Amino acid sequence: MTVLQPEKTVASIRWLAAPTSPSWLEEANCYLDHLLIDHAHCERKAAGSAVQMMFRYLCEPGLAEALSPIAQEELEHFDRVLAVVKQRGRYLEPLPSPYYGATLSKAIRKGEPNRMLDSFLVAGLIEARSHERMALLADHCRDQDLRQLYSDLLVSEARHFGQYWLLCEQRWDRALITQRLEELAMVEVEALTGQLKQPEDVRMHSVGVQS
Amino acid sequence: MTVLQPEKTVASIRWLAAPTSPSWLEEANCYLDHLLIDHAHCERKAAGSAVQMMFRYLCEPGLAEALSPIAQEELEHFDRVLAVVKQRGRYLEPLPSPYYGATLSKAIRKGEPNRMLDSFLVAGLIEARSHERMALLADHCRDQDLRQLYSDLLVSEARHFGQYWLLCEQRWDRALITQRLEELAMVEVEALTGQLKQPEDVRMHSVGVQS
Repeated sequence: MTVLQPEKTVASIRWLAAPTSPSWLEEANCYLDHLLIDHAHCERKAAGSAVQMMFRYLCEPGLAEALSPIAQEELEHFDRVLAVVKQRGRYLEPLPSPYYGATLSKAIRKGEPNRMLDSFLVAGLIEARSHERMALLADHCRDQDLRQLYSDLLVSEARHFGQYWLLCEQRWDRALITQRLEELAMVEVEALTGQLKQPEDVRMHSVGVQS
Repeated sequence: MTVLQPEKTVASIRWLAAPTSPSWLEEANCYLDHLLIDHAHCERKAAGSAVQMMFRYLCEPGLAEALSPIAQEELEHFDRVLAVVKQRGRYLEPLPSPYYGATLSKAIRKGEPNRMLDSFLVAGLIEARSHERMALLADHCRDQDLRQLYSDLLVSEARHFGQYWLLCEQRWDRALITQRLEELAMVEVEALTGQLKQPEDVRMHSVGVQS
Protein backbone atom coordinates (compact mmCIF):
# COMPACT_ATOMS: atom_id res chain seq x y z
CA MET A 1 0.00 0.00 0.00
CA THR A 2 1.29 3.43 -0.93
CA VAL A 3 1.33 5.79 2.01
CA LEU A 4 -0.55 8.96 1.24
CA GLN A 5 1.33 12.20 1.61
CA PRO A 6 -0.94 15.00 2.82
CA GLU A 7 0.21 17.39 0.10
CA LYS A 8 -0.97 14.94 -2.57
CA THR A 9 -4.60 15.66 -1.74
CA VAL A 10 -4.40 19.42 -1.33
CA ALA A 11 -6.30 21.64 -3.73
CA SER A 12 -6.97 18.86 -6.21
CA ILE A 13 -10.71 19.55 -6.17
CA ARG A 14 -11.37 23.23 -6.61
CA TRP A 15 -14.66 23.65 -4.83
CA LEU A 16 -14.11 21.56 -1.71
CA ALA A 17 -13.40 23.75 1.32
CA ALA A 18 -10.91 21.25 2.81
CA PRO A 19 -9.11 18.23 1.38
CA THR A 20 -9.45 14.72 2.75
CA SER A 21 -6.87 13.74 5.35
CA PRO A 22 -4.56 10.72 5.15
CA SER A 23 -6.33 9.28 8.21
CA TRP A 24 -9.54 8.73 6.22
CA LEU A 25 -7.64 6.76 3.60
CA GLU A 26 -5.94 4.65 6.25
CA GLU A 27 -9.29 3.77 7.82
CA ALA A 28 -10.89 3.13 4.44
CA ASN A 29 -8.11 0.66 3.63
CA CYS A 30 -8.86 -1.22 6.86
CA TYR A 31 -12.59 -1.63 6.13
CA LEU A 32 -12.86 -1.99 2.37
CA ASP A 33 -15.92 -4.26 2.38
CA HIS A 34 -17.78 -1.86 4.62
CA LEU A 35 -16.73 1.06 2.38
CA LEU A 36 -17.98 -0.79 -0.70
CA ILE A 37 -21.40 -1.43 0.84
CA ASP A 38 -21.63 2.26 1.76
CA HIS A 39 -20.49 3.15 -1.77
CA ALA A 40 -23.30 1.05 -3.30
CA HIS A 41 -25.77 2.88 -1.06
CA CYS A 42 -24.26 6.22 -2.16
CA GLU A 43 -24.75 5.40 -5.87
CA ARG A 44 -28.34 4.34 -5.16
CA LYS A 45 -29.02 7.52 -3.24
CA ALA A 46 -27.44 9.70 -5.93
CA ALA A 47 -29.76 8.08 -8.51
CA GLY A 48 -32.74 8.54 -6.18
CA SER A 49 -31.86 12.20 -5.68
CA ALA A 50 -31.67 12.85 -9.46
CA VAL A 51 -35.02 11.08 -9.99
CA GLN A 52 -36.54 13.00 -7.08
CA MET A 53 -35.49 16.32 -8.67
CA MET A 54 -36.97 15.16 -12.00
CA PHE A 55 -40.27 14.62 -10.19
CA ARG A 56 -40.14 17.83 -8.17
CA TYR A 57 -39.32 20.11 -11.13
CA LEU A 58 -41.33 18.16 -13.63
CA CYS A 59 -41.86 20.75 -16.31
CA GLU A 60 -38.74 22.88 -15.85
CA PRO A 61 -37.25 23.17 -19.35
CA GLY A 62 -33.92 21.43 -19.89
CA LEU A 63 -33.92 19.69 -16.53
CA ALA A 64 -35.38 16.20 -17.01
CA GLU A 65 -33.14 15.55 -20.02
CA ALA A 66 -30.07 16.47 -17.92
CA LEU A 67 -31.06 14.54 -14.79
CA SER A 68 -32.23 11.33 -16.44
CA PRO A 69 -28.76 10.41 -17.86
CA ILE A 70 -27.18 11.20 -14.48
CA ALA A 71 -29.68 8.87 -12.76
CA GLN A 72 -29.01 6.14 -15.33
CA GLU A 73 -25.26 6.38 -14.82
CA GLU A 74 -25.59 6.31 -11.03
CA LEU A 75 -27.70 3.14 -11.34
CA GLU A 76 -25.08 1.56 -13.65
CA HIS A 77 -22.46 2.31 -11.01
CA PHE A 78 -24.73 0.91 -8.32
CA ASP A 79 -25.00 -2.34 -10.34
CA ARG A 80 -21.24 -2.51 -10.72
CA VAL A 81 -20.44 -1.81 -7.06
CA LEU A 82 -23.15 -4.22 -5.87
CA ALA A 83 -21.67 -6.95 -8.10
CA VAL A 84 -18.27 -6.42 -6.42
CA VAL A 85 -19.90 -6.45 -2.96
CA LYS A 86 -21.52 -9.81 -3.84
CA GLN A 87 -18.30 -11.24 -5.30
CA ARG A 88 -16.76 -10.54 -1.90
CA GLY A 89 -19.50 -12.53 -0.17
CA ARG A 90 -21.47 -9.60 1.18
CA TYR A 91 -24.76 -7.90 0.27
CA LEU A 92 -26.43 -4.53 0.57
CA GLU A 93 -26.48 -4.58 4.33
CA PRO A 94 -28.36 -1.71 5.97
CA LEU A 95 -26.22 1.10 7.33
CA PRO A 96 -27.41 3.83 9.69
CA SER A 97 -28.31 7.06 7.91
CA PRO A 98 -25.17 9.16 7.77
CA TYR A 99 -24.87 12.53 9.47
CA TYR A 100 -23.27 13.80 6.23
CA GLY A 101 -26.37 13.51 4.04
CA ALA A 102 -28.73 14.72 6.76
CA THR A 103 -26.59 17.80 7.45
CA LEU A 104 -26.37 18.73 3.77
CA SER A 105 -30.11 18.19 3.28
CA LYS A 106 -30.84 20.53 6.18
CA ALA A 107 -28.75 23.24 4.50
CA ILE A 108 -31.02 23.27 1.45
CA ARG A 109 -33.27 26.33 1.73
CA LYS A 110 -37.03 25.78 1.61
CA GLY A 111 -38.45 28.36 -0.81
CA GLU A 112 -37.97 28.34 -4.58
CA PRO A 113 -35.86 29.14 -6.51
CA ASN A 114 -33.30 28.85 -3.66
CA ARG A 115 -34.29 25.25 -3.05
CA MET A 116 -33.46 24.30 -6.63
CA LEU A 117 -30.10 26.11 -6.60
CA ASP A 118 -29.12 24.54 -3.27
CA SER A 119 -30.26 21.08 -4.41
CA PHE A 120 -28.02 21.26 -7.48
CA LEU A 121 -25.06 22.59 -5.48
CA VAL A 122 -25.39 20.02 -2.70
CA ALA A 123 -25.65 17.21 -5.27
CA GLY A 124 -22.59 18.68 -7.01
CA LEU A 125 -20.57 18.93 -3.78
CA ILE A 126 -21.30 15.29 -2.91
CA GLU A 127 -20.08 14.33 -6.40
CA ALA A 128 -16.97 16.47 -5.89
CA ARG A 129 -16.14 14.83 -2.56
CA SER A 130 -16.80 11.38 -4.04
CA HIS A 131 -14.49 12.25 -6.94
CA GLU A 132 -11.75 13.34 -4.56
CA ARG A 133 -11.97 10.24 -2.39
CA MET A 134 -12.28 7.81 -5.30
CA ALA A 135 -9.16 9.39 -6.81
CA LEU A 136 -7.35 8.70 -3.53
CA LEU A 137 -8.60 5.11 -3.55
CA ALA A 138 -7.69 4.69 -7.23
CA ASP A 139 -4.08 5.52 -6.31
CA HIS A 140 -3.78 4.16 -2.80
CA CYS A 141 -6.31 1.40 -2.19
CA ARG A 142 -4.52 -1.70 -1.01
CA ASP A 143 -6.71 -3.94 -3.20
CA GLN A 144 -5.57 -3.94 -6.84
CA ASP A 145 -9.03 -4.81 -8.26
CA LEU A 146 -10.70 -2.04 -6.31
CA ARG A 147 -8.10 0.47 -7.52
CA GLN A 148 -9.34 -0.26 -11.04
CA LEU A 149 -12.98 0.05 -9.97
CA TYR A 150 -12.43 3.47 -8.38
CA SER A 151 -10.33 4.59 -11.32
CA ASP A 152 -13.20 3.72 -13.70
CA LEU A 153 -15.87 5.42 -11.62
CA LEU A 154 -14.20 8.64 -10.51
CA VAL A 155 -14.38 10.29 -13.94
CA SER A 156 -18.18 10.29 -13.86
CA GLU A 157 -18.23 11.89 -10.44
CA ALA A 158 -16.29 14.89 -11.78
CA ARG A 159 -18.52 15.04 -14.85
CA HIS A 160 -21.65 14.98 -12.70
CA PHE A 161 -20.31 17.90 -10.67
CA GLY A 162 -19.88 19.76 -13.97
CA GLN A 163 -23.41 18.88 -15.04
CA TYR A 164 -24.93 20.18 -11.79
CA TRP A 165 -22.80 23.33 -12.13
CA LEU A 166 -24.10 23.80 -15.69
CA LEU A 167 -27.72 23.43 -14.52
CA CYS A 168 -27.00 26.31 -12.11
CA GLU A 169 -25.25 28.47 -14.74
CA GLN A 170 -28.21 28.08 -17.09
CA ARG A 171 -30.44 29.61 -14.42
CA TRP A 172 -28.43 31.95 -12.16
CA ASP A 173 -25.70 34.52 -12.23
CA ARG A 174 -22.23 33.06 -11.75
CA ALA A 175 -21.36 35.33 -8.81
CA LEU A 176 -24.48 34.23 -6.94
CA ILE A 177 -23.74 30.55 -7.64
CA THR A 178 -20.14 30.87 -6.52
CA GLN A 179 -21.07 32.63 -3.30
CA ARG A 180 -23.65 30.00 -2.38
CA LEU A 181 -21.35 27.15 -3.38
CA GLU A 182 -18.66 28.49 -1.06
CA GLU A 183 -21.17 28.66 1.81
CA LEU A 184 -22.37 25.12 1.15
CA ALA A 185 -18.79 23.86 0.79
CA MET A 186 -18.23 25.00 4.39
CA VAL A 187 -21.32 23.05 5.46
CA GLU A 188 -19.98 20.03 3.56
CA VAL A 189 -16.78 20.08 5.61
CA GLU A 190 -18.77 20.51 8.82
CA ALA A 191 -20.93 17.55 7.75
CA LEU A 192 -17.77 15.46 7.37
CA THR A 193 -16.20 16.51 10.66
CA GLY A 194 -19.28 16.60 12.88
CA GLN A 195 -19.86 12.87 12.95
CA LEU A 196 -19.00 10.52 15.79
CA LYS A 197 -15.84 8.77 14.74
CA GLN A 198 -15.63 5.02 15.03
CA PRO A 199 -12.97 3.43 12.82
CA GLU A 200 -15.35 0.69 11.71
CA ASP A 201 -17.88 3.34 10.66
CA VAL A 202 -15.74 4.48 7.78
CA ARG A 203 -17.85 5.70 4.87
CA MET A 204 -17.28 7.29 1.52
CA HIS A 205 -18.33 10.50 3.29
CA SER A 206 -17.15 9.94 6.85
CA VAL A 207 -14.83 11.98 9.09
CA GLY A 208 -11.41 12.94 7.73
CA VAL A 209 -10.45 16.30 6.31
CA GLN A 210 -7.32 18.34 6.82
CA SER A 211 -7.84 21.25 9.19
CA MET B 1 -54.52 4.64 -41.17
CA THR B 2 -55.43 1.00 -40.73
CA VAL B 3 -58.79 0.55 -39.05
CA LEU B 4 -58.52 -1.70 -36.04
CA GLN B 5 -60.71 -4.77 -36.01
CA PRO B 6 -61.83 -5.62 -32.47
CA GLU B 7 -60.81 -9.25 -32.78
CA LYS B 8 -57.23 -8.19 -33.48
CA THR B 9 -56.77 -7.09 -29.88
CA VAL B 10 -58.50 -9.97 -28.13
CA ALA B 11 -56.48 -12.25 -25.89
CA SER B 12 -53.16 -11.00 -27.13
CA ILE B 13 -51.99 -10.24 -23.62
CA ARG B 14 -52.65 -13.14 -21.34
CA TRP B 15 -53.05 -11.45 -18.00
CA LEU B 16 -55.19 -8.46 -18.90
CA ALA B 17 -58.82 -8.98 -17.89
CA ALA B 18 -60.16 -7.11 -20.94
CA PRO B 19 -58.58 -6.04 -24.23
CA THR B 20 -58.37 -2.44 -25.38
CA SER B 21 -61.24 -1.29 -27.57
CA PRO B 22 -60.91 0.22 -31.06
CA SER B 23 -62.31 3.49 -29.67
CA TRP B 24 -59.20 4.05 -27.58
CA LEU B 25 -57.00 3.69 -30.65
CA GLU B 26 -59.17 6.08 -32.63
CA GLU B 27 -58.90 8.72 -29.91
CA ALA B 28 -55.18 8.12 -29.50
CA ASN B 29 -54.71 8.74 -33.22
CA CYS B 30 -56.49 12.09 -32.88
CA TYR B 31 -54.30 13.36 -30.03
CA LEU B 32 -50.86 11.91 -30.69
CA ASP B 33 -48.89 14.80 -29.19
CA HIS B 34 -50.94 14.61 -26.01
CA LEU B 35 -50.45 10.84 -25.91
CA LEU B 36 -46.68 11.25 -26.32
CA ILE B 37 -46.46 13.71 -23.43
CA ASP B 38 -48.45 11.30 -21.27
CA HIS B 39 -46.19 8.46 -22.46
CA ALA B 40 -43.06 10.38 -21.38
CA HIS B 41 -44.66 10.87 -17.95
CA CYS B 42 -45.47 7.13 -17.82
CA GLU B 43 -41.85 6.15 -18.49
CA ARG B 44 -40.68 8.61 -15.81
CA LYS B 45 -43.19 7.24 -13.32
CA ALA B 46 -42.26 3.63 -14.11
CA ALA B 47 -38.61 4.49 -13.40
CA GLY B 48 -39.62 6.29 -10.21
CA SER B 49 -41.64 3.31 -9.08
CA ALA B 50 -38.73 0.88 -9.62
CA VAL B 51 -36.36 3.21 -7.73
CA GLN B 52 -38.94 3.63 -4.94
CA MET B 53 -39.16 -0.17 -4.53
CA MET B 54 -35.33 -0.34 -4.44
CA PHE B 55 -35.41 2.14 -1.54
CA ARG B 56 -38.32 0.50 0.26
CA TYR B 57 -36.91 -3.05 0.13
CA LEU B 58 -33.30 -2.02 0.45
CA CYS B 59 -31.73 -5.20 1.66
CA GLU B 60 -34.08 -7.79 0.12
CA PRO B 61 -31.76 -10.26 -1.66
CA GLY B 62 -31.99 -10.28 -5.45
CA LEU B 63 -34.23 -7.26 -5.69
CA ALA B 64 -32.05 -4.19 -6.22
CA GLU B 65 -30.12 -5.92 -9.01
CA ALA B 66 -33.41 -6.71 -10.79
CA LEU B 67 -35.03 -3.30 -10.30
CA SER B 68 -32.03 -1.12 -11.17
CA PRO B 69 -31.83 -2.30 -14.84
CA ILE B 70 -35.62 -1.83 -15.18
CA ALA B 71 -35.29 1.75 -13.86
CA GLN B 72 -32.41 2.44 -16.25
CA GLU B 73 -34.38 1.17 -19.23
CA GLU B 74 -37.45 3.21 -18.29
CA LEU B 75 -35.26 6.31 -18.08
CA GLU B 76 -33.75 5.54 -21.50
CA HIS B 77 -37.28 5.31 -22.90
CA PHE B 78 -38.19 8.53 -21.15
CA ASP B 79 -35.23 10.24 -22.88
CA ARG B 80 -36.30 8.87 -26.24
CA VAL B 81 -39.97 9.82 -25.91
CA LEU B 82 -39.10 13.28 -24.54
CA ALA B 83 -36.80 13.85 -27.56
CA VAL B 84 -39.73 13.04 -29.88
CA VAL B 85 -42.03 15.34 -27.86
CA LYS B 86 -39.49 18.16 -28.27
CA GLN B 87 -38.98 17.46 -32.01
CA ARG B 88 -42.71 18.03 -32.33
CA GLY B 89 -42.43 21.42 -30.64
CA ARG B 90 -43.86 20.43 -27.28
CA TYR B 91 -42.39 19.78 -23.84
CA LEU B 92 -43.18 17.83 -20.69
CA GLU B 93 -46.36 19.73 -19.98
CA PRO B 94 -48.05 18.89 -16.68
CA LEU B 95 -51.03 16.55 -16.88
CA PRO B 96 -53.53 15.94 -14.08
CA SER B 97 -52.80 12.80 -12.08
CA PRO B 98 -54.61 9.95 -13.75
CA TYR B 99 -57.39 7.98 -12.05
CA TYR B 100 -55.70 4.84 -13.40
CA GLY B 101 -52.52 5.08 -11.31
CA ALA B 102 -54.36 6.27 -8.19
CA THR B 103 -56.86 3.39 -8.39
CA LEU B 104 -54.14 0.79 -8.82
CA SER B 105 -52.08 2.29 -5.98
CA LYS B 106 -55.09 2.08 -3.67
CA ALA B 107 -55.42 -1.64 -4.45
CA ILE B 108 -51.95 -2.36 -3.06
CA ARG B 109 -52.41 -3.86 0.40
CA LYS B 110 -50.65 -2.18 3.32
CA GLY B 111 -48.97 -4.94 5.34
CA GLU B 112 -45.92 -6.92 4.22
CA PRO B 113 -45.36 -9.24 2.43
CA ASN B 114 -48.67 -8.50 0.66
CA ARG B 115 -47.56 -4.98 -0.16
CA MET B 116 -44.48 -6.26 -1.98
CA LEU B 117 -46.45 -8.87 -3.94
CA ASP B 118 -49.10 -6.33 -4.94
CA SER B 119 -46.48 -3.73 -5.86
CA PHE B 120 -44.79 -6.17 -8.26
CA LEU B 121 -48.11 -7.28 -9.76
CA VAL B 122 -49.44 -3.75 -10.23
CA ALA B 123 -46.16 -2.67 -11.85
CA GLY B 124 -46.39 -5.76 -14.07
CA LEU B 125 -50.01 -5.09 -15.07
CA ILE B 126 -49.18 -1.51 -16.06
CA GLU B 127 -46.34 -2.88 -18.21
CA ALA B 128 -48.73 -5.43 -19.74
CA ARG B 129 -51.31 -2.76 -20.62
CA SER B 130 -48.56 -0.52 -22.02
CA HIS B 131 -47.31 -3.44 -24.09
CA GLU B 132 -50.78 -4.11 -25.45
CA ARG B 133 -51.44 -0.49 -26.38
CA MET B 134 -47.98 0.13 -27.84
CA ALA B 135 -48.47 -2.96 -30.00
CA LEU B 136 -51.72 -1.44 -31.28
CA LEU B 137 -49.96 1.84 -31.99
CA ALA B 138 -47.02 0.07 -33.64
CA ASP B 139 -49.49 -1.42 -36.11
CA HIS B 140 -52.13 1.29 -36.41
CA CYS B 141 -50.68 4.68 -35.48
CA ARG B 142 -51.30 7.10 -38.31
CA ASP B 143 -47.80 8.59 -37.94
CA GLN B 144 -45.12 6.41 -39.58
CA ASP B 145 -42.27 7.62 -37.32
CA LEU B 146 -44.28 6.95 -34.19
CA ARG B 147 -45.12 3.43 -35.41
CA GLN B 148 -41.37 2.75 -35.35
CA LEU B 149 -41.01 4.30 -31.89
CA TYR B 150 -43.78 2.15 -30.41
CA SER B 151 -42.48 -0.93 -32.19
CA ASP B 152 -39.04 -0.39 -30.63
CA LEU B 153 -40.37 0.21 -27.12
CA LEU B 154 -43.09 -2.40 -26.78
CA VAL B 155 -40.69 -5.34 -26.45
CA SER B 156 -39.28 -3.97 -23.19
CA GLU B 157 -42.74 -3.57 -21.72
CA ALA B 158 -43.41 -7.29 -22.18
CA ARG B 159 -39.98 -8.14 -20.78
CA HIS B 160 -40.59 -5.93 -17.74
CA PHE B 161 -43.87 -7.75 -17.07
CA GLY B 162 -41.87 -10.99 -17.14
CA GLN B 163 -39.30 -9.57 -14.76
CA TYR B 164 -41.93 -8.50 -12.23
CA TRP B 165 -43.56 -11.94 -12.56
CA LEU B 166 -40.20 -13.58 -11.88
CA LEU B 167 -39.67 -11.44 -8.77
CA CYS B 168 -43.02 -12.82 -7.53
CA GLU B 169 -42.21 -16.42 -8.46
CA GLN B 170 -38.92 -16.24 -6.57
CA ARG B 171 -40.88 -15.37 -3.42
CA TRP B 172 -44.40 -16.85 -3.56
CA ASP B 173 -46.31 -19.91 -4.65
CA ARG B 174 -47.55 -19.71 -8.23
CA ALA B 175 -51.20 -20.39 -7.31
CA LEU B 176 -51.18 -17.52 -4.84
CA ILE B 177 -49.57 -15.16 -7.41
CA THR B 178 -52.06 -16.14 -10.12
CA GLN B 179 -55.06 -15.62 -7.87
CA ARG B 180 -53.92 -12.18 -6.77
CA LEU B 181 -52.93 -11.21 -10.32
CA GLU B 182 -56.44 -12.09 -11.51
CA GLU B 183 -57.96 -9.92 -8.77
CA LEU B 184 -55.68 -7.01 -9.60
CA ALA B 185 -56.33 -7.43 -13.33
CA MET B 186 -60.01 -6.77 -12.59
CA VAL B 187 -59.04 -3.63 -10.70
CA GLU B 188 -56.89 -2.60 -13.68
CA VAL B 189 -59.87 -2.76 -16.00
CA GLU B 190 -62.00 -0.85 -13.49
CA ALA B 191 -59.21 1.76 -13.29
CA LEU B 192 -59.37 2.13 -17.08
CA THR B 193 -63.14 2.36 -17.30
CA GLY B 194 -63.87 4.45 -14.20
CA GLN B 195 -62.40 7.67 -15.53
CA LEU B 196 -64.30 10.63 -16.85
CA LYS B 197 -64.05 10.43 -20.60
CA GLN B 198 -63.04 13.50 -22.55
CA PRO B 199 -61.64 12.72 -26.01
CA GLU B 200 -58.79 15.20 -25.53
CA ASP B 201 -57.85 13.49 -22.26
CA VAL B 202 -56.63 10.40 -24.07
CA ARG B 203 -53.75 8.75 -22.21
CA MET B 204 -51.69 5.64 -22.56
CA HIS B 205 -53.92 4.30 -19.78
CA SER B 206 -57.23 6.08 -20.41
CA VAL B 207 -60.74 4.72 -20.97
CA GLY B 208 -61.22 2.11 -23.66
CA VAL B 209 -61.56 -1.62 -23.10
CA GLN B 210 -63.94 -4.08 -24.69
CA SER B 211 -66.78 -5.09 -22.37
